[in-house]
Amino acid sequence: MPAILECVPNISEGRDLEKVEKIVDAIRTTKDVKLLDYSSDKDHNRSVITFLGEPNAVAEAALKLAKAATELIDMSTHTGGHPRMGAVDVMPLIPIKDITIEETIELSKKLAESIANECNMHVTLYENSASAPHRQNLADIRRGQYEVMAEKIKEDMWIPDYGPNEFNPKAGMVAVGARPPLIAYNINLSTDDVKIAKNIANVIRSAKGGFVFCKAMGLLIEETGKAQVSMNLVNPDYTTIFRVFDMVEREAHRYGVSVTDSEIVGLVPMKALIDTAIYHLKLDNFSMDQVLETRIWE
Amino acid sequence: MPAILECVPNISEGRDLEKVEKIVDAIRTTKDVKLLDYSSDKDHNRSVITFLGEPNAVAEAALKLAKAATELIDMSTHTGGHPRMGAVDVMPLIPIKDITIEETIELSKKLAESIANECNMHVTLYENSASAPHRQNLADIRRGQYEVMAEKIKEDMWIPDYGPNEFNPKAGMVAVGARPPLIAYNINLSTDDVKIAKNIANVIRSAKGGFVFCKAMGLLIEETGKAQVSMNLVNPDYTTIFRVFDMVEREAHRYGVSVTDSEIVGLVPMKALIDTAIYHLKLDNFSMDQVLETRIWE
Repeated sequence: MPAILECVPNISEGRDLEKVEKIVDAIRTTKDVKLLDYSSDKDHNRSVITFLGEPNAVAEAALKLAKAATELIDMSTHTGGHPRMGAVDVMPLIPIKDITIEETIELSKKLAESIANECNMHVTLYENSASAPHRQNLADIRRGQYEVMAEKIKEDMWIPDYGPNEFNPKAGMVAVGARPPLIAYNINLSTDDVKIAKNIANVIRSAKGGFVFCKAMGLLIEETGKAQVSMNLVNPDYTTIFRVFDMVEREAHRYGVSVTDSEIVGLVPMKALIDTAIYHLKLDNFSMDQVLETRIWE
Repeated sequence: MPAILECVPNISEGRDLEKVEKIVDAIRTTKDVKLLDYSSDKDHNRSVITFLGEPNAVAEAALKLAKAATELIDMSTHTGGHPRMGAVDVMPLIPIKDITIEETIELSKKLAESIANECNMHVTLYENSASAPHRQNLADIRRGQYEVMAEKIKEDMWIPDYGPNEFNPKAGMVAVGARPPLIAYNINLSTDDVKIAKNIANVIRSAKGGFVFCKAMGLLIEETGKAQVSMNLVNPDYTTIFRVFDMVEREAHRYGVSVTDSEIVGLVPMKALIDTAIYHLKLDNFSMDQVLETRIWE
């Protein structure tokens, strides 16, 4: 089994599904990559595509997708509810297997340069690839959205890492970067008191002194009438899902409520769940090689 | 990804490693199967081979291995510490992926018949393939060992399912059958009092009214000086590793000792560990499709 890299580009088209299909074809027609999922949102006028494969093949497919997106999408006429700044808007590269975050950063920079050259658009490196700490967070880079980008990129703090001399109004700008796999994780409480969920979120989130790699908020789920702690675990090797769960459960008890259940949204790396089993079963000397499936697929 | 079947034949040769290599070549030279592991024990004069792959290819490789073993091993001169009855002694087939236990039973019967015909040896079906309840347990079929088999197989209860008219003294008899994947699992206690481990083993083992699919014993580990509950979980989808762990921990507390750690011996199906995570994180609606690796390798 070769190394595996995942890529989750977001493109600024979610209404014209024929265009989306043509753009997704960039993945389908590339060797050694696999399209896992794609979905379009009409209100957002945006599509999210998930694919993975051999790292160089993933970079090749990502470049082809950026080319197709910048050919078919015109940002100067784009409307939609989701913040955006480019035809291909954001392109995270996520190391899955036998590739380090450092190698992924290096690959992301090559990809960013190729996109800038071949799509004639500006590219800002973000997340682990960022060229400065204030450029790690996508929301900060994108603040003001497409409409202000031609001016914003003239500011010293926001000069793009790659791109043409002139802002390309059709293509806009894209953020490209490496980041660890994240887990979208929700824990439901036996209460409709959203204040409790918000308080617990504030205990566990990094912004308030909680776990370093945890972003969290409290909200009320309309369908169930239950309060929920909703989070992204952005580096689950370090901020582990099982310790976050235990802390949320302990805090819930402090308010006299309990955890009814939890849910992982989308995909999760096998390791995060097996680490949970290792912890609870005290499997101190367990090796991932002992998982039968890793031997089948190695 | 096609269906996957595992096979773990035991052969009665553990001293002449050239012969073992020739026999293992039967696996290496078969398409669509993968040799995972093999190891030889001189005292036992026995080797255990683990391989897996596409089910029909596994059956083909198993037959080739049986032929090589019966050509190269002569049971009439065999000595060794481990109970045995044939050149190829036991051949379990274990469904791993996209094959049911019923389909595995069917395949085991075809394989048993082929071995009988092509190796001119007796074959008794065992475990889930057994033709009668008293023939499920290998130890019962093999009791008395090779030395009594020519006579034992004349008894009504022990007439082999397949084989020649005359007992073949060179080849002996083999047990072939389907069984679910088992987990060899040990839990270590913070005590050197082996009596506590034995008492706990008696609480959890099926033979004493405990979990249906749990075989267990208590013993003292010389190296560590710690008492250990050692078990086989023979159907971990039903008798789950996490509930067994919890019960052992509770019983240990009853004696004023604790569980220091546990260990899985050899391979474990991914599902058993992910089920543990699902239980402890209360992931009530989790689907195995959400495990990233299953999407890569599907």
